[in-house]
Amino acid sequence: MSSPILISLDAMGGDHGPPVVVAGVLDYRKRHGGEGVRFLLHGDETAIRAEIAKSGLTDDVCLVRHTDKVVAMDEKPAQAMRRGKGSSLWNAIEAVKTGEAGAVVSAGNTGALMAISRLLLRMSAHGLERPAIVASWPTHRGITAVLDVGANIESDAEQLIEFAIMGEAFHAAVHGGVKPTIGILNVGSEDMKGHEEVREANRILREGGAGLNLDYRGFVEGTDIARGTVDVVVTDGFTGNIALKTAEGTARYISALLREALTSNLQSKLGAAIAMPALKKMREKIDPSTINGGPLLGLNGIVVKSHGGADAKGFGNAIRIAVDLARSDYMTKVGANLGKLDAVFDHSSPPAAPAGEPLQ
Amino acid sequence: MSSPILISLDAMGGDHGPPVVVAGVLDYRKRHGGEGVRFLLHGDETAIRAEIAKSGLTDDVCLVRHTDKVVAMDEKPAQAMRRGKGSSLWNAIEAVKTGEAGAVVSAGNTGALMAISRLLLRMSAHGLERPAIVASWPTHRGITAVLDVGANIESDAEQLIEFAIMGEAFHAAVHGGVKPTIGILNVGSEDMKGHEEVREANRILREGGAGLNLDYRGFVEGTDIARGTVDVVVTDGFTGNIALKTAEGTARYISALLREALTSNLQSKLGAAIAMPALKKMREKIDPSTINGGPLLGLNGIVVKSHGGADAKGFGNAIRIAVDLARSDYMTKVGANLGKLDAVFDHSSPPAAPAGEPLQ
Repeated sequence: MSSPILISLDAMGGDHGPPVVVAGVLDYRKRHGGEGVRFLLHGDETAIRAEIAKSGLTDDVCLVRHTDKVVAMDEKPAQAMRRGKGSSLWNAIEAVKTGEAGAVVSAGNTGALMAISRLLLRMSAHGLERPAIVASWPTHRGITAVLDVGANIESDAEQLIEFAIMGEAFHAAVHGGVKPTIGILNVGSEDMKGHEEVREANRILREGGAGLNLDYRGFVEGTDIARGTVDVVVTDGFTGNIALKTAEGTARYISALLREALTSNLQSKLGAAIAMPALKKMREKIDPSTINGGPLLGLNGIVVKSHGGADAKGFGNAIRIAVDLARSDYMTKVGANLGKLDAVFDHSSPPAAPAGEPLQ
Repeated sequence: MSSPILISLDAMGGDHGPPVVVAGVLDYRKRHGGEGVRFLLHGDETAIRAEIAKSGLTDDVCLVRHTDKVVAMDEKPAQAMRRGKGSSLWNAIEAVKTGEAGAVVSAGNTGALMAISRLLLRMSAHGLERPAIVASWPTHRGITAVLDVGANIESDAEQLIEFAIMGEAFHAAVHGGVKPTIGILNVGSEDMKGHEEVREANRILREGGAGLNLDYRGFVEGTDIARGTVDVVVTDGFTGNIALKTAEGTARYISALLREALTSNLQSKLGAAIAMPALKKMREKIDPSTINGGPLLGLNGIVVKSHGGADAKGFGNAIRIAVDLARSDYMTKVGANLGKLDAVFDHSSPPAAPAGEPLQ
């Protein structure tokens, strides 16, 4: 039997709040069983209980902790840190800090989630100022984890290596990689390509100097992501964010062209209708809700961000990721490897205090 | 009648050499008429003349200048600079330097083309160490020019503004933009997002301080490229290269999924056969050969790089871009705007000498 675990949920986060969060719990249980998994839902008790009653879930699976306070989707991170105490987002994270819950999932304000997580849980990755966001990217060969796609705009060699450590453990825990392979995103595959930061990280990982025992494969290019050349693609948050959004834009553009082509006249509509079952199966492979859920990595605790607009299936997948991470050896494996890094990079000066405007 | 012009061609460049270069000339004339356009083909005279004879082109349209020497596709740029003198690539560029030709097109070794162009033509953009490569990106709203997708790995504010100036003039000359709009690629649209370089460039362009008279629209995100939000997307060569290759990889992945779906069983094969005319039309919109041809911008002369594996249609399109640029006011417009930039950025120290290993 799987070990019992409590997952903390920000029931008020996202564009839809309690209806999608509770439906997400239901979807998760339908798809993954969820044996031994209980949920602690933070937010408006009346609204949450109404959804639970409709869903047929029982009180022993869904605990509810009331709060009136909510962090708005457009609230600035600094403001959320100052005024967010006691909100559903804050309380959901705090349950991880106290050890009551094994992980937290929120579809709320990303900046606020990141800032309050950092404040309450603190960073475990010493080179990072902010948690890294990992994207699960569908490829020819399964799922590739790409990080950082978030907030670390300029990443030095140490940060890139931390991404490698965390991405590898994430892929093993969530996407079943037995010994996940790792590449650093660059403009070419030769060792002398790119800027100083990627070259230094490449050199250290190639030499295996820190004793990290990672299956590092060198530089990869943009085309290698969808090709699935490696299981983990490491990049700074600026490049990663732009690569992810450019891919999303490209996928949307091609889908629109396809839709247009298949509805352009009666003949193509007929063809599309006949091929529809196969086209539907194809669409599932790149359906965002099957890969929804981006963990914030580098914290002393497991925090998973769901897309604000995710549906029940999407939120259910974010829960799945949180459970897989919490039940795996992710935290101990990452902790051990990050410790080895301290021998390579000097941390004699104390880490920056988590105050002020944390996100750009 | 259009003004007469001579286009210099490296007939030995690319994966195919003279057959595709001559077929490209033919394709260009078929699609665009090519009134007043003559070609100067550099390379093995016997091989070139054999192709010309087959093609039915006449000697007054295609001049041939013989050389035995060829720069190999895998030759290092520094080596090509030292030993490339007298090669088809070198001579093709030199014809632009002497003023004999209005532009040069080559499908040869990119690094060598860039290095020898820089050596012979010199940079006109003072902030750039290397020419910028511009990609013509198909979008929901036409073609968007994205630059740099090439060699300028780390771009400061001055370089980014030079990309804006050159991209705007390129779009107007080649893609018919009347007053092309410009955006800088970033991780968000708010002015405080991103790193120092993009924020400084954004500030200067917003204030219009240099009197550039550009239609600058602020920051854009990765999703905005395929959306066609602006006509010109400005970014450093590292991010641009990765965005372009990530988009290519995504397009290839989705095409593969589509092919797989439409051939998965008899029923979907039937549907695909019926919808085929519409699907073919769709494929044309994202056919790489319709957008082949990336000019190297920032040089004192017009140099267009064709993809090494381009077919006749693709090479013909690269010729079209070279002719459009050479016949437009691109060079004078860019020259005037770059001059205004000198008042903003200090160039008291002389530009770096174009020696040594020019490409990473």
